[in-house]
Amino acid sequence: MKVRGAPLIGIIGGYGLVLAAKQVKTRDMSQALRSLRKWADSLIATRPTGVNLRWAVERVFNASARASTPSQIEEELLREADSILKEELDAAHRIGKFGASLLEDNDTVLTHCNAGALATAGYGTALAVIRAAVEEGKHISVIATETRPLLQGSRLTAFELARENIPVKLICDSAAAQVLSRGGVNKVVVGADRILRTGYVTNKIGTLPIALAAKFFAIPFYAAAPVSTLDLLADPSTIVIEERDPLEVLRIGGRRFAPRNMKALNPAFDITPPELVTGIITDRGLALPPFEKSIQAQIV
Amino acid sequence: MKVRGAPLIGIIGGYGLVLAAKQVKTRDMSQALRSLRKWADSLIATRPTGVNLRWAVERVFNASARASTPSQIEEELLREADSILKEELDAAHRIGKFGASLLEDNDTVLTHCNAGALATAGYGTALAVIRAAVEEGKHISVIATETRPLLQGSRLTAFELARENIPVKLICDSAAAQVLSRGGVNKVVVGADRILRTGYVTNKIGTLPIALAAKFFAIPFYAAAPVSTLDLLADPSTIVIEERDPLEVLRIGGRRFAPRNMKALNPAFDITPPELVTGIITDRGLALPPFEKSIQAQIV
Repeated sequence: MKVRGAPLIGIIGGYGLVLAAKQVKTRDMSQALRSLRKWADSLIATRPTGVNLRWAVERVFNASARASTPSQIEEELLREADSILKEELDAAHRIGKFGASLLEDNDTVLTHCNAGALATAGYGTALAVIRAAVEEGKHISVIATETRPLLQGSRLTAFELARENIPVKLICDSAAAQVLSRGGVNKVVVGADRILRTGYVTNKIGTLPIALAAKFFAIPFYAAAPVSTLDLLADPSTIVIEERDPLEVLRIGGRRFAPRNMKALNPAFDITPPELVTGIITDRGLALPPFEKSIQAQIV
Repeated sequence: MKVRGAPLIGIIGGYGLVLAAKQVKTRDMSQALRSLRKWADSLIATRPTGVNLRWAVERVFNASARASTPSQIEEELLREADSILKEELDAAHRIGKFGASLLEDNDTVLTHCNAGALATAGYGTALAVIRAAVEEGKHISVIATETRPLLQGSRLTAFELARENIPVKLICDSAAAQVLSRGGVNKVVVGADRILRTGYVTNKIGTLPIALAAKFFAIPFYAAAPVSTLDLLADPSTIVIEERDPLEVLRIGGRRFAPRNMKALNPAFDITPPELVTGIITDRGLALPPFEKSIQAQIV
């Protein structure tokens, strides 16, 4: 959790494999590749829910095919990791451009967690949409959820937006439905850790209840993510929801509020079904329902 | 916020008026009543959302009609406040009895905030239902939300249940929908601060998103409250949602996580519409939809 945000986890995972390649000292090519494969698998296993990590690590691993000797592996892998970083930063700007067209002047946007520069190669996904709209001269206000347990909303989103003088107000996660119910919020825009081609959006825990409330109060709900977040699988039951340390729930900032020996459940992500999703903004455009068709069109 | 939980706020508000009566020194009866009326109005104004406070303070105020001289007022008011305390404790046990019949052996119940002994005259409302089921010999497990901003779930519900050896696991508020989605939770039972005769349930912020998720995943959602929580009004727009200090959002346990000068919204309650409510458990029985009819039947 020193690195967070699915796109950034992917990028860093790719560079992680470059560092792993440095450790591979053998002169035997097939032994080098077996060793590299093990490193790739352990990197992928660190965060099971997001799909960008697997995508980036596999892509960097596959660059080893361009090496004819073990000594060339590291160089090829580094070139690929650099390409991913550059492409993902470009993707963030394209997401911003496509998404900004959905926001109107004076819109208030509710977002969850941090899908900003600090979660990506830079510029962001959900926050890229807001940034790009502001750069187009639109006045956008933001409602940001604090995002328990790790408070990425309070610590990161609030920080990013305040630094750029984009008006932002924090709320407790549990207040999102009430804030959507009382009017004044025009759109919900969140990031994503994995989007199935059927339109299921896996994102930070707490996204699903916001999507349910947005649907109930007829407020458009968008997920923004690079195509590296797309997963060709169709069945949400294949997604492993990472279950993190209960202490993240039981303690806040090192201080314990619950009684001693209390148990806790700490799922880190939830899955929003396609019927709650108005649209998915990627670096290739806006995908609208039926997603099976529109997302497929983006990845061919 | 030294006293919290709508039923307990009512009881304490009633005793508050008894203390106020002590301050009224005049020998002129109509002057004494005017002075007492002012105290009653300021007590009622302290917490606008829950209805039990108004109900109890008015009931204690009206006991002054039994006094023929100012010196008798305090005594009459105290007698009424004592009656309310006794009646509300009886009510809690009846709520438990009626609600327990809805729980089956080995049920897991999700609850929000603290609707326990620490929120009422004793025994609780939502937790009365769980306690009574356990006293009947049923094995009940509880999922309790931490309940930001003031963490009544972590601090109070977890404490109450652990002390009685009822198995409980804490979750972040934002995780309730995911936990309901994955199966294993059989019922949601919460308390209430004000229930309209049309079935709108005002309760701690974060109740509405849980009700939305319960509906979406077809899990029964019950609110438990004494009839003193019922409000004969029908229109949810008449309910004032208390907006509390933004610092409750920006700080946790005295520690600040958000950047300096950050703004926050802090609505303390939300309103769950009747179409999301499976039933309302009061001390007079279980009210089922259509609530306009079933709740009316309980208060005549």
